Amino acid sequence: MRRVSLTAIEGIPAVRPGDDLATQIGDAADAQGLALANGVLVVCQKIVSKAEGRLVALADVEPSQEARRVAEQDDKDPRHVEVVMRETARVVRHGHRTWIAETRHGFVCANAGVDLSNADADTAVLLPVDPDASARALLDELAKRGAGPLAVVVSDTFGRPWREGLVDVALGCAGIAPIEDLRGGTDWVGRPLEVTATATADQLAAAAGLLMRKDAGIPAVWVDGVTPKGDGAVRDTLRESSTDLFR
Amino acid sequence: MRRVSLTAIEGIPAVRPGDDLATQIGDAADAQGLALANGVLVVCQKIVSKAEGRLVALADVEPSQEARRVAEQDDKDPRHVEVVMRETARVVRHGHRTWIAETRHGFVCANAGVDLSNADADTAVLLPVDPDASARALLDELAKRGAGPLAVVVSDTFGRPWREGLVDVALGCAGIAPIEDLRGGTDWVGRPLEVTATATADQLAAAAGLLMRKDAGIPAVWVDGVTPKGDGAVRDTLRESSTDLFR
Repeated sequence: MRRVSLTAIEGIPAVRPGDDLATQIGDAADAQGLALANGVLVVCQKIVSKAEGRLVALADVEPSQEARRVAEQDDKDPRHVEVVMRETARVVRHGHRTWIAETRHGFVCANAGVDLSNADADTAVLLPVDPDASARALLDELAKRGAGPLAVVVSDTFGRPWREGLVDVALGCAGIAPIEDLRGGTDWVGRPLEVTATATADQLAAAAGLLMRKDAGIPAVWVDGVTPKGDGAVRDTLRESSTDLFR
Repeated sequence: MRRVSLTAIEGIPAVRPGDDLATQIGDAADAQGLALANGVLVVCQKIVSKAEGRLVALADVEPSQEARRVAEQDDKDPRHVEVVMRETARVVRHGHRTWIAETRHGFVCANAGVDLSNADADTAVLLPVDPDASARALLDELAKRGAGPLAVVVSDTFGRPWREGLVDVALGCAGIAPIEDLRGGTDWVGRPLEVTATATADQLAAAAGLLMRKDAGIPAVWVDGVTPKGDGAVRDTLRESSTDLFR
């Protein structure tokens, strides 16, 4: 039977700047008897950002006049708004107390990915500078411990237009093609497949999201049954503004 | 260990209008020794639509002048464009040969969900009239065979703004809350969780998408390890135009 199995990696300690994430995740997996090989590790952005020191103490933030104005309008902490504005390359939409921004990476998301919850109080957590590179570094370290090839996906929880609720998506990956392009193939009656570029990295992130509890001690999930194929960066799968109908 | 396991249900015959999908899926699961109880069945929209007879023979379609104009502009089959227009409640965007429509259900997707590939040649497959009701009917029939409670999610493959590649999302569900609302809870340092309404039905659809091969004999996936909680309809989780920043 074709089967995919997802396992929560528990017991990873609270991550602090400078921590060696590969050792923390690898040790926690070892303690569960889980071999991180021939599969995909999905790890939430938040612990990656923390290990990389992407933290801003709100006490040190001096909000600009514009940040104060937006904070007043949206009933938010002006220091949080200031950090969000610094991480914003371009405002895509602002309304209903929601700030949808394009980040320097090219992600389009609420608050430019800046998160307050689940950090130490009064600390903002920023997205990693280069989540594909974060995934690559983690992959390289874990590969030294492992018994076979693996892939790494760094995930975060995003809202979407048109549908309520959040889903986990891939911010970065290594050791796997983020999109499996089946175009050029045919379906079972021989008709050419028109659009069948599956966003595998995003499907992996969403699947892992079924177990991920980044606020409750499950910041990583191991996926068995998906053989890492190809390679590539999530960065290269973000749509160009010029071909995007929603910017 | 907390684990979620996904199993492809294979051997489901080619579905035709009027077919009893519950029997076809149930028998295929039985043949694999898979008990459809205490978990979630994800089934792709295409076989649901086929069983419900949501098929249009293109030979019977007389394209309007407007359909001919759009087909000419986008280099598409005018009969396909005509069917897409009939399924369109409102055009959200039209450009780059892409027709993003709001359907009568409230879904926003390419071609109003009308699919050509993987049907019999020259047949268009429309979305089910009420995918939540489709899920409910399938659930009721499968529950009669099963040994315990289950949930059903009807999934389809959609593109998204800003990111290349397709992901599977839920069109309908029964026996499970499509969104797990954790708002009002606190994270592990006691800070209130601000936005943590997880779109569980969509995460299930995406997870199943790792195994789904609707063009190659895998139109359904069984999910073990997610206990169906609550109830609700995907229809109620589609954002109102008035609170949507992208319509």
